[in-house]
Amino acid sequence: MRMAELSREAGVPVATVKYYQREGLLPPGELTSPNQARYGTDHVRRLKLVRALLDIGGLSVADAREVLAAIDDPRTSTHDVLGLAQHGLPMPRGTVSAADRDWAEETIATLCAERGWRPPPSDLIESLVVVLCAFREVGHEWVLDALSHYAEAADRVAAADIAAVARLRPTEAVVEGAIVGTVLGDALLATLRRVAHAEISRKRLRD
Amino acid sequence: MRMAELSREAGVPVATVKYYQREGLLPPGELTSPNQARYGTDHVRRLKLVRALLDIGGLSVADAREVLAAIDDPRTSTHDVLGLAQHGLPMPRGTVSAADRDWAEETIATLCAERGWRPPPSDLIESLVVVLCAFREVGHEWVLDALSHYAEAADRVAAADIAAVARLRPTEAVVEGAIVGTVLGDALLATLRRVAHAEISRKRLRD
Repeated sequence: MRMAELSREAGVPVATVKYYQREGLLPPGELTSPNQARYGTDHVRRLKLVRALLDIGGLSVADAREVLAAIDDPRTSTHDVLGLAQHGLPMPRGTVSAADRDWAEETIATLCAERGWRPPPSDLIESLVVVLCAFREVGHEWVLDALSHYAEAADRVAAADIAAVARLRPTEAVVEGAIVGTVLGDALLATLRRVAHAEISRKRLRD
Repeated sequence: MRMAELSREAGVPVATVKYYQREGLLPPGELTSPNQARYGTDHVRRLKLVRALLDIGGLSVADAREVLAAIDDPRTSTHDVLGLAQHGLPMPRGTVSAADRDWAEETIATLCAERGWRPPPSDLIESLVVVLCAFREVGHEWVLDALSHYAEAADRVAAADIAAVARLRPTEAVVEGAIVGTVLGDALLATLRRVAHAEISRKRLRD
């Protein structure tokens, strides 16, 4: 198909398709003349994926580029993706004071012991430290009262994710599924959390 | 305190403090001369909150401005914040086809019936529709197999959130806590989900 049809099929304006190509998010089409290229269903699929990562997942163009490179890299294993949150999946980063860091690391160690988790990879510990310290910095340490519920919920969702994704075939679909599930799954979980807030809040108002 | 001390106390460069002031994220100090202003501990607190909303919560400056306005508005009730996800808390938005919308709305109705949730507010339904359709668009409908686990996890976290936040005093702290908890809580939950992915993935590799 031509660029115009690709644009229609994926529901993405031509100018945006060209922008994604320039940014390396979409591979070039097959040149049929110096000024015309042909695109296939893989391009439609990729375009929809780019759209979902940027619009729903909230990734930056640079992050999306890294995530797509990981999907395309035949060396990427499911374990890499699900296990290590690398490959440009954006994680909270920031600087914290030494005292706050000690407090956060102790909190994390206690939480892991409680859940039977081994010490997480260092980049994930760092992200947890930054998020916990952010709560503390703004004077909302009440989150500690809810922390074990957060961890249990995360465990439940992660187990369901991995069970569902591991059934995908072929293997490349598993890697893509893991990345899509991580990025879009955050948006799904955040939205369902707001739905549950609304439901519980209405129940409390009524009682 | 002077601007320089405010900057040191909050760990935010002076240029950034001035930028936040121009953008309406930080109220002006008390003028002590035409060129000098005095700031108090409330400014330090607000500055840290702005930092957390932008850096950890990933809010845009415009979204942060709306969220802070909701915190400062004496008419904002906890129910408003927790219940209705309004006030600029960013939610997934996008356009979907009529067929995809029907499918998503039916999926949501089934999920709500399963969990005993009443129909959610329309803006939350819209967000759920958009996220579910994004999974479907990219060919990853496997998320449906995990959906009830997501909803149960969301319920558990929301109940813990509301129980913890409702204990805060005075009432203004409840509103701020609800907003901070919603924004930073998403980051916490997303990070813990990656930790759980890592743990489960390592276990699977070993077995």
